[in-house]
Formats: sequence, structure tokens, C-alpha cells
Amino acid sequence: MTEDTQTFTPTRDASVHEAAPSSDSERAAAPWPRNAWYVACTPDEIDGKPLGRKICGEQMVLFRGQDGRPAAMDDFCPHRGAPLSLGFMREGNLVCGYHGLAMGCSGRAVDMPGQRVKGFPPVRTYAAVERYGFIWVWPGDQEAADPALMHHLPWAESAEWAYGGGRYHIACDYRLMVDNLMDLTHETYVHASSIGQKEIDEAPVKTRAEADEVVTSRFMDGVQAPPFWRMALRGAGLPEDAVVDRWQICRFSLPSHVMIEVGVALAGQGGYEADDAAKASSIVVDFITPETETSHHYFWGMARKFAVDDAALTDTIREGQGKIFSEDLEMLERQQANLLRYPDRKLLKLNIDAGGARSRLMIDRAIAAETMPE
Amino acid sequence: MTEDTQTFTPTRDASVHEAAPSSDSERAAAPWPRNAWYVACTPDEIDGKPLGRKICGEQMVLFRGQDGRPAAMDDFCPHRGAPLSLGFMREGNLVCGYHGLAMGCSGRAVDMPGQRVKGFPPVRTYAAVERYGFIWVWPGDQEAADPALMHHLPWAESAEWAYGGGRYHIACDYRLMVDNLMDLTHETYVHASSIGQKEIDEAPVKTRAEADEVVTSRFMDGVQAPPFWRMALRGAGLPEDAVVDRWQICRFSLPSHVMIEVGVALAGQGGYEADDAAKASSIVVDFITPETETSHHYFWGMARKFAVDDAALTDTIREGQGKIFSEDLEMLERQQANLLRYPDRKLLKLNIDAGGARSRLMIDRAIAAETMPE
Amino acid sequence: MTEDTQTFTPTRDASVHEAAPSSDSERAAAPWPRNAWYVACTPDEIDGKPLGRKICGEQMVLFRGQDGRPAAMDDFCPHRGAPLSLGFMREGNLVCGYHGLAMGCSGRAVDMPGQRVKGFPPVRTYAAVERYGFIWVWPGDQEAADPALMHHLPWAESAEWAYGGGRYHIACDYRLMVDNLMDLTHETYVHASSIGQKEIDEAPVKTRAEADEVVTSRFMDGVQAPPFWRMALRGAGLPEDAVVDRWQICRFSLPSHVMIEVGVALAGQGGYEADDAAKASSIVVDFITPETETSHHYFWGMARKFAVDDAALTDTIREGQGKIFSEDLEMLERQQANLLRYPDRKLLKLNIDAGGARSRLMIDRAIAAETMPE
Repeated sequence: MTEDTQTFTPTRDASVHEAAPSSDSERAAAPWPRNAWYVACTPDEIDGKPLGRKICGEQMVLFRGQDGRPAAMDDFCPHRGAPLSLGFMREGNLVCGYHGLAMGCSGRAVDMPGQRVKGFPPVRTYAAVERYGFIWVWPGDQEAADPALMHHLPWAESAEWAYGGGRYHIACDYRLMVDNLMDLTHETYVHASSIGQKEIDEAPVKTRAEADEVVTSRFMDGVQAPPFWRMALRGAGLPEDAVVDRWQICRFSLPSHVMIEVGVALAGQGGYEADDAAKASSIVVDFITPETETSHHYFWGMARKFAVDDAALTDTIREGQGKIFSEDLEMLERQQANLLRYPDRKLLKLNIDAGGARSRLMIDRAIAAETMPE
Repeated sequence: MTEDTQTFTPTRDASVHEAAPSSDSERAAAPWPRNAWYVACTPDEIDGKPLGRKICGEQMVLFRGQDGRPAAMDDFCPHRGAPLSLGFMREGNLVCGYHGLAMGCSGRAVDMPGQRVKGFPPVRTYAAVERYGFIWVWPGDQEAADPALMHHLPWAESAEWAYGGGRYHIACDYRLMVDNLMDLTHETYVHASSIGQKEIDEAPVKTRAEADEVVTSRFMDGVQAPPFWRMALRGAGLPEDAVVDRWQICRFSLPSHVMIEVGVALAGQGGYEADDAAKASSIVVDFITPETETSHHYFWGMARKFAVDDAALTDTIREGQGKIFSEDLEMLERQQANLLRYPDRKLLKLNIDAGGARSRLMIDRAIAAETMPE
Repeated sequence: MTEDTQTFTPTRDASVHEAAPSSDSERAAAPWPRNAWYVACTPDEIDGKPLGRKICGEQMVLFRGQDGRPAAMDDFCPHRGAPLSLGFMREGNLVCGYHGLAMGCSGRAVDMPGQRVKGFPPVRTYAAVERYGFIWVWPGDQEAADPALMHHLPWAESAEWAYGGGRYHIACDYRLMVDNLMDLTHETYVHASSIGQKEIDEAPVKTRAEADEVVTSRFMDGVQAPPFWRMALRGAGLPEDAVVDRWQICRFSLPSHVMIEVGVALAGQGGYEADDAAKASSIVVDFITPETETSHHYFWGMARKFAVDDAALTDTIREGQGKIFSEDLEMLERQQANLLRYPDRKLLKLNIDAGGARSRLMIDRAIAAETMPE
């Protein structure tokens, strides 16, 4: 042992933790509202284990606390920066898989082998709520995170409806997906073999903006049902060859939900307004959660009001819908690449683009309201 | 419906489209002549479907119009920026696969479901010509695109010649490929088992620059033919074990074509000048089309003047040549990586490098002439 | 032939080669000592062929000269910049695989077909030494490269010890691996099924810094051996179920070696000090060679003093150790990603982190000493 030998006494820096995972200026520039509820994952994704996922630019870990309630926090262990999502659950606490620091739902360190954790800095948490079959998070100002502000989904709470869905990760701005869903003209081209039909192009589209939603609707009366809807008619116990009245009513609401009422009714029975017995109707459910400025998590599904006990039909529809939505992926990701290549090019805004354009306007206003000086 | 409700009337921005896909300053810096004919693809690549390909930094879509003539334009739908190359052909028009905008060869919108397209902005087009078994495009000033300026390839129009070839995408500056082909010394090392032989290193190389081409030649008299040429001798009905006179005459011409006359003749029959009956001779055909500053499309092939009706021989040669050229890929791509790593290092210019050096000088002069103020 | 025709006389530029592969300023900023011996590869990696590897930011080619001694130089052919590591060995010279330039161990061109190489610029070389079963290089000031400065490894020269090991490429700062190895608390979590046990967390850790090493030690008396050590006890001919005294003594030395004395002795026989017959003891050997600022080559192994002639046991241990170390990879690489994502976040420094913290301090002092003006 030389004179240089010494016992090391570790000290913790005064300011060991900065709560802000990204600077305010970065956040101000983000192209999404921060103060809103976004779908983060499905309940099965956090069953018994943590899940790492980036939501609105925030790298989060999601898990369930001891009471089973969901929690979300920065996916960054305050000890050495390891991702907490590589850890495991123990009695409702999230244990870091590197050195065993256990974190509680509140973002406070609970215990660590051989350490007093009382002075450990807290980790930034995000409000998380389980509702309607999804885990929702609020990425922005946590004091404003009010579950009452969550979009209401009546079908998700009713026994008269059945639901099935899935998730895709898509490398494009979430607003390109909003555009896509608020203009179903593309069904004729992208989804020619399932839900596309030439009458979509021919039927005029109407767009209107209300206080809290943008609605784009199209009605096609007296048409043949395309393959997907023939399957649905069979599922609903109706003749698949019948002439039908078809409708599409796309509803955008903040921050980035698109609910599309779609269906076919036997022709002349009232269309959208027809009796349930004379129609196969459903809601295409789209939760579009930004990941980065050029990628998003796309939660898609279908809620239907016919044959709700037919689990096999739920699977068939999920498979069909998954295939249809996968057809959009390459188009959207290559469109994104093109827009990045030519950032200064202006695009056309046609009548069919009004739904997307109005939705973007609603998004822009929400962002502006958040960043406005008070 | 609230007061905020309204019907959306779409308007088209005054300047919705900028014809220039990249800024002039970017273009001035590009290391290739823009006003020249480049091979873009082979005819089969646009049979009945569009092809997306970046040529000289321009993201193009290539297709055939109704008259069968090739066309090229920006691969960017003026509606929403989708790549037109994901679309399909309909009666000689290119239909965007997203929302159905149909574009004519002239770059003008032809029709779109439910839209008046007359006022749609045109898309930038590129002159395209089918000749010599290739589709050629002119990426630069379209008013200067004169088919008469195209390199003349007599062998491609003569029944006395047969041709076979292929294409590689290579992640290196196209000029590294020019260097490679204008100095065949590397055959001894890179292609030791097929066309390399030690006499290549021993034979002196001569380089001369003429008005419109750079020529590097090497003659090896009284040698044994390496494996590739033994195969060719057999194909030509000559004894593969014979002592031969071998030649290599590399001809570079603008913008980036390298035609290499190669062959072997029975020794003492005049070598390059020998009667066709006493030799197996051919032209290695290389069209080197820049994609980006560090990648290119390499169209390679061999035109031969012996056994021209022997389709099986064409296949055998194509396979052998494809294998030989694939041996260059790793070397060129790793050389490129090294040059990017050390951008300031100067390289040696030996006599064997004269062909490449003179070719680059010709390229530089062509670029300078294009960017000179008039 | 036009007037423009001429014969090209190649000239070599006055300053064709810059010896420095990276600027001095870049080097000053590198987070590793440059004047030190690092393990570059194992002897088998350069048996009869060159090896390209980046060491401390320097892209090197390693090979054996005619006398069998190792050599290292820039992996950049002075002719056209091809990687020399794509070449081959011929009579102790490294022949470039592109055009045949042969380089000697001294970094001077030896010959090239048809060329006088006397005036060719030399390539930068690096001192290379074979010792202890490894090839070591000195990336910094070559005049200071003294083999006597190499870390001494007695076990590597003794017949009483056996050694087996492997190599991983890991995408993280080499110092994160130093942290990892100087705090074995993580065994409980990352390596729960092999060497982890709860007593590790419970036993206090002591760290001390000496003149040339940092030592972190932990002793666990009267415990059950975890699976890896049960195997070792069996290999040493001792009862695997016995209660044991276990120890871990981690020794960091510059530039980035971590030797960890580990073992178990039958309880009450003196632990670390027990007779060889009553213990299974070994040294975990870790040479951590920076590649870039966010990646390193990790040479790991185990030297053991029991059952040294049991080659099958060497293989079993290597396999077990390789599996254990592979468990660290994802954690370290994702930790690195997290630190890059939040470069300004400060981390905790607990007592268990003292070994890594003191080692980093030793590294920082070595770097500062190198960059100090003289």
C-alpha cells in the first residue's frame, strides 16, 4: 500500500438528476400535443413484466404496481442509467436488472441491497390509466393529467359490442396516418382486393369541423359489397350478394384518434340509419401514438355491433383488417421518405384531403395553446 | 353542430410545386456531368410496371407510355408526395397507387377520380430513350437532351455480335469503378482464378487521351490463356491449350462508359489484328451510372463476335463475368469506406493509374464546362 | 488521334501521404490513454492471414512478418487507399489484394509489379508484441513503446495455471465495462442463474486505490456455492455441496485491464488464503480494448490453478463464462444508448460504484498526463 492508497467515500452530487428528459425548446418544437391521453400499450404487454416504449419522444417504462394499476416512468435507472425495462417486477416494484435498485410506482426508490435509498432522486413519472382495454399515458404536464379528459368510447363499455385489434410500428409522422384515415379514397387503390371499390371515388366526400372533432363522410347507395364486407354480411347472417348502401364516417379527435363508422345495410333500409338487423356495421378504431417525429405506434382495431359472441369472427376480422392495414405501411413509409427528401415541396390540398387538413389544423391549434405564454 | 362548424373549401396554394428536386448549389457540386445520357435500366425492368431508381441524385420513376416509348419523371406524386413508382400502368399512364392520380408521359396529370386535374402542377420529366438494349436518361438541362449525342455502340446494332450482361448496385463513388476498369492490373489479384495472370503485371501499359476518349492498352504475346479465356476459346471452336496473344484495350468515354476490347488469338496470327477465325474477341461493356456521391448502378456485360448464336454460351459467359465482377464489390466498397475515413489523404498516381486519372480529368472538364457562366 | 492526344506521364505528388490518420485535436479528445499496450487480437487471428481491426480509433491491419513476429500498420494501402487487410501474406510481406503492392513489417513498400517502390511513402506502423498468449499493440507515440511497460501476468507464464477465453465486440464505451467489472454486485441480477447469489449484495465491498491499481474486494463466508462454482468444485475434486468461503478481488490497472481473483474454499480453511487443495480459485481475465468512443473489443477469459490438465474442463468453463458475459451485453449496450440519449444526466455514485469511479479517475489522470504540455 502506498501513500496514494485510500478508502473511497462515495458522495452523491448535489444535483444528480434532472427531471426533464428533453429540453423545453425541443418539446416546444414537437409536432404533437403533449397534454393529452395517448394509448401506450395493451394490458397484456405489461402482464407481469415491464415494457419499454417511447411515447411522444419520452422513453418510458410501463408496468403494473402492486395494486395492479398501471404506472409509467422514465426508462432510466437513476443509479447508472440502465434501462429499467430490462428489469423485473417484485411485489409491485420495478427492480432494475443491473444492480437491483427497486423503484415504486411513484418514481421513488424503494430499496437497494446494501444502500439507504432515502436520498435517491426520484424518477420522472407519467400519469397512466387503464381504460377501454388500453393503457393510456399523459406525456406532458403531469398536474394537468385528468382522466376525465379522456376520449369517451361507449362501445368499449357495452356488451352489445365486440372488439379485436392489433398494433403496428410505422416509420412515418403520425399525421400522415391521420391524413390516410381521414381520406378513404385510397381504399380503391391501396386496398383494391378487400374494401376498395370504384364507387368510393365516385361518391362525393363531405368534411366538417366541429368543436371537438373533424368529420369526413361518404355514402354509397345501391352498390355491391367488396370482399371484406361480404364476409361481414355473412358474419351478420345477411346475404352477401345483396345490393347494399355503404357508408364511411371518419371522426378525428384530439390528440390523434380516428374512429370510423363503417358499414353496409341492405339497400333501401335506411343505410346508416337502418335497423341493426338489416346491416353489418362497425367502428374502425385507430389510436395513433407518436413515437418520434418520423415514427408512431399504430393501434388499430374494429368494434362491431353484430355477432358479438362469435370469437372466430373476431379473429377473422382481425386477420383481415391486419392485412389491410399492412398494405398501407410501405406507402406511408415511402411517402415519409419522399417528404424528408424534399422538405420544401408543397403538396396539393384537394377536397378529399380536407379531413386530414382540418385535423392537422386542430392539432396545430392544440400545440399552439400549449406553448402560448400564460 | 357548433358555430365552429363549417364546410371546408380546399384551395390549392399558388406555388404548389417546385420543379427543382434539388437546389442549384447542390447540383453544381455533384461530381458527375449532368448533361449526358446515362443508362438507367434495362427494358425488362419497365415491362408493364413502373420502376423507381435514383440516377445522378435524381429520384426518378421510369415507365413506358402508351406508344411503348420510355418516360422518366420525378418519383413524387404532386398530390401528397407518394412515390409514383408504387403505382401501376393504365393505358400508358402512370397511376399513383395512393389516391389514383394518373400521370401522362409529359409529366402532366391526366385524370383523378372526382377531380379536375387541369390546374395540377406538372411533374419534372427527364428525356428517356430506348437504344442498344438499354433505357437511357438525361438528368440535366432537358432542352439540351439530344439523342444524337448518345455514344454509338456499333456492336449493339449488328447481327455479328451477341450480348449478355447484368447489373450491380455498388456503394462507392462511380469514379472508383472507372479507375478499376481503366487499370486491369488488378485482375492478377482480384480475379486470380478466372482472368488474372502474372503476364498482366509484366506487360507495360500505355495510356493516351484523345479528343473524346481515354485509351489504355496492354498486349501480352505468347502466353497461356487463363480459365475464362480457355472457356472462350472452347466456345469459339479453338484449342484451349494453345499459346495465345492476349490484349486489353480500355476505352473511357463521357460521361462514364468504359468499353474494353479484350481477346486472345492463336499466337503469331496477328493478335488483336488476327482473322476472326483465329481468335476469341469481345468487348467488356461497362455503363457506370452515378446514384449518389458514394454509390452507383453498374451495368456490365460482354459483347462477343464469336459463336453468336450459342445462347448457352451467352449464359455461361454472363455467369462467369457476373462472378468476376462481384469479386470487385467488396474491394471497391471498402476502398470507399477508407477514403471517407481519411478524406485528406493523397493517393499515389502510378503509370498504371494513368487511365483512371485521365478519365477523371475528362470528367472534371465536362463538369466545369457545365457550370461555367455563359 | 487529335492534337489533344498525348502520352500520360504520371507524377507522384510531393506530399502523397499524411502519417496522421486522425488529427491531433481528435486524439487529444479521445477518452483513453494512447501510450499504453492494448490487446489487439489472439495469435490465431493472424495465422497466415492479415486481420483488419480498429484499436483506439486507429484502423489497423495486423499480421505476422517473415520471422513470425507480429506487425501492425494503417489498414490503408498508400497506392489507392484499399484496405490492406483484404490482401494476403507472401514471404512475410503483406500484399495488397487490389494491385499487388507488397508492404514489409516496417511499413515500407517492398515491391510492386512493374513499379519502382523506393520512393513510395511509408505507412504508419504501430509497435506490436506477442506475449502471454495475446498480440498487443501500442497505438500512441511509437518512440515510447517499451515492452517493459507491459502489464505482467505471472499466471500466463506458469505451468501451474490453465487458461481459456474468448472475445466479444460490444457497442459501448469501454469504461462502462470497467464499471461493470469493478462492481460485481450485478452478478446477483444479471447472472442470477450461474454466479449470482444474494450474499453478494449483503457482503460489504471495500475499494482502495494504490499507485498502479484500484482494488475492490468482497468476502462471503459460510455460503453455498452458486452453479458455476459447484462445477468448479467438482472440477477441482472437491464436494460441490460443501459450505464455502467465497471471495472476489477485482484489480484494475491501466490502461483497461481488470483481473479478478475469484474462488471458493471449503469453509473455515482460510478462504482466499486456504491451501490450494481446499479451494477452487481462478482469475477472471479482462482486457478491454477501446475501438471507438462507443464500442470496444472485450477479451475475456479465466486462468485457473486447479485441474490445469483437464482440457475438457477448460472448454466447459469457457462455455459457461462466455454465456455469463453474453448476459452483460444487452444491458451494457442499452445503458450506452440511454447515456447517449441523455448526455447531461448525472448518475449516482454509491459505495458499490467506487471501484469504477476510482478506475476512471486513474484513466483520466493518464490521459491528462499525455496531453499535458511539456
